[in-house]
Amino acid sequence: MQERILDFLKRKQGYVSGDTIASRLGITRQGLWKHIQELKELGYDIVAVPHLGYRLESLPDRLFPFEVSHNLNTKFVGKRAHYFDTATSTMEIAMDLGLKGAPAGSVVIAESQTKGKGRLGRIWFSPKYKGIYLSLILRPTLLPSEASIFTLLSAVSICEALKNFAAIDAQIKWPNDIFLGQKKLGGILTELNAETDKINFIVIGIGLNVNNDKKSLISGSTSLKEHKKESVDRAGLLKEVLRRIEANYFLLEKKGSGVILDKWREHNLTLGRRVKVYCQKKHLEGEALGLDRDGGLLVRNDGGLIEKVLAGDVVHCR
Amino acid sequence: MQERILDFLKRKQGYVSGDTIASRLGITRQGLWKHIQELKELGYDIVAVPHLGYRLESLPDRLFPFEVSHNLNTKFVGKRAHYFDTATSTMEIAMDLGLKGAPAGSVVIAESQTKGKGRLGRIWFSPKYKGIYLSLILRPTLLPSEASIFTLLSAVSICEALKNFAAIDAQIKWPNDIFLGQKKLGGILTELNAETDKINFIVIGIGLNVNNDKKSLISGSTSLKEHKKESVDRAGLLKEVLRRIEANYFLLEKKGSGVILDKWREHNLTLGRRVKVYCQKKHLEGEALGLDRDGGLLVRNDGGLIEKVLAGDVVHCR
Repeated sequence: MQERILDFLKRKQGYVSGDTIASRLGITRQGLWKHIQELKELGYDIVAVPHLGYRLESLPDRLFPFEVSHNLNTKFVGKRAHYFDTATSTMEIAMDLGLKGAPAGSVVIAESQTKGKGRLGRIWFSPKYKGIYLSLILRPTLLPSEASIFTLLSAVSICEALKNFAAIDAQIKWPNDIFLGQKKLGGILTELNAETDKINFIVIGIGLNVNNDKKSLISGSTSLKEHKKESVDRAGLLKEVLRRIEANYFLLEKKGSGVILDKWREHNLTLGRRVKVYCQKKHLEGEALGLDRDGGLLVRNDGGLIEKVLAGDVVHCR
Repeated sequence: MQERILDFLKRKQGYVSGDTIASRLGITRQGLWKHIQELKELGYDIVAVPHLGYRLESLPDRLFPFEVSHNLNTKFVGKRAHYFDTATSTMEIAMDLGLKGAPAGSVVIAESQTKGKGRLGRIWFSPKYKGIYLSLILRPTLLPSEASIFTLLSAVSICEALKNFAAIDAQIKWPNDIFLGQKKLGGILTELNAETDKINFIVIGIGLNVNNDKKSLISGSTSLKEHKKESVDRAGLLKEVLRRIEANYFLLEKKGSGVILDKWREHNLTLGRRVKVYCQKKHLEGEALGLDRDGGLLVRNDGGLIEKVLAGDVVHCR
């Protein structure tokens, strides 16, 4: 009901009479008043003027599910949202929801995380109301070894959303970091639940620094606010990310991974550079030559030998 | 405490006086009597004779955790057991326990399953007290694409356990079925939870028909009892399976997958035969030539082309 009242208020620039809203929604004036109070408590700035009615002055800076679904216009991504003011980790919650059969496109959104997960067991620093901390459940028909295309697809989608929504040119550091200049803006973590020959579901986790001030950023990181010197509408950006992920997902289904890899190369920061790669068992240094079909990084060492890296940390040398 | 009382009774062939047990365990005669009653309710046939004491006549046909851990002699496999008289699916429970951090080697054992899981979303028929329905959590340091070696490792371990414990020569139909003659005795399902470049944990699910009579077997299946014309000690067999899995796991860590693949070939029913393979997107027919390093099946069609199959259903042609 609150969502429907908000819809009313958002469609009108000026005042809407309480009578009009109440009768359209089939509730009493008294009932409407109670809902309005609840919306105000959520942070919606709604003014009431006798004889004129209600007017929505401003929205709170929150990622409420009904804000995310409002004008989202996707087929399935983001249609169901699970929202937490504070979560342990959106990944943990989404993996659990996936096990319990949550449909493809379900998202878990948190305003802050106490144990935000980064790649390889690392922590993702998740200060409250500052960033986008999101996990998305998908159920593609793929082999487990093909899952990493979704890390690349998500990185591409984030770059496209930043371009469309905030006119920002971000870049991708292999395999999963979003960079702005020389600093880290965001990261992507893809987890999967699979049989050995069939993915049951994957969860894409996205962490983005949006409105962090310098003091809520760790060293080597930046935020959109730091870069643009103004706050960014988190809900609007989040929605554009979801739209781009869905669009690229359909593209992947229709045209295969090649088109995603091409887009990735356009945004990439790693290829053509001299890199050091730290893998589980060894490390190597050389030129980042290109991307393999499965998303692996091809590195040519000084002896001319080309090796493929599927996992690891990359350091860009100067 | 019940476990310790059982230990006492199992070590003695004849009667043990209540006084001896009670004083050794630091409990009262009254307390001992209560525990004995509870054990009787669990199905332990314990007789009590005045002046002589207690004697264990027979064990119930149950897979209680303290029966599984008794003389198990493994380093970590089966050290923690979660037991259910009826479970939805041991896989579902184990995947959930894995998410919550259950240690490597933890097992989930059920006497029956209402939604026993087979490969590719199929049902595993799990009548009560007839079979072994087991899921085992492992945490190997591997890439997701390497997980299928554990399906092969488990199949080998089951064949070895059947040989050691029941003097039965079972065979493996690619990729995961245990066969006795032309009939299916068991199946293996491997699920994983992973990042794209690192396995968090895998769960190996094993379903084995042990003491099923003809009426509790589906068409094309057999049980050990049908084959041997006598019941088999389920707990004993289960323990031998766990021991063999652990031994082969250590072998894999030390020597790599080659030695597991060699063992697999010794027991296999598929290689060298003419097969039809039904995959997700296509099917092919030809000779099952061999096993690839990652466990994939190499099939040579009539045109001489060799294709690798990672997933699919195999039909052995005559």
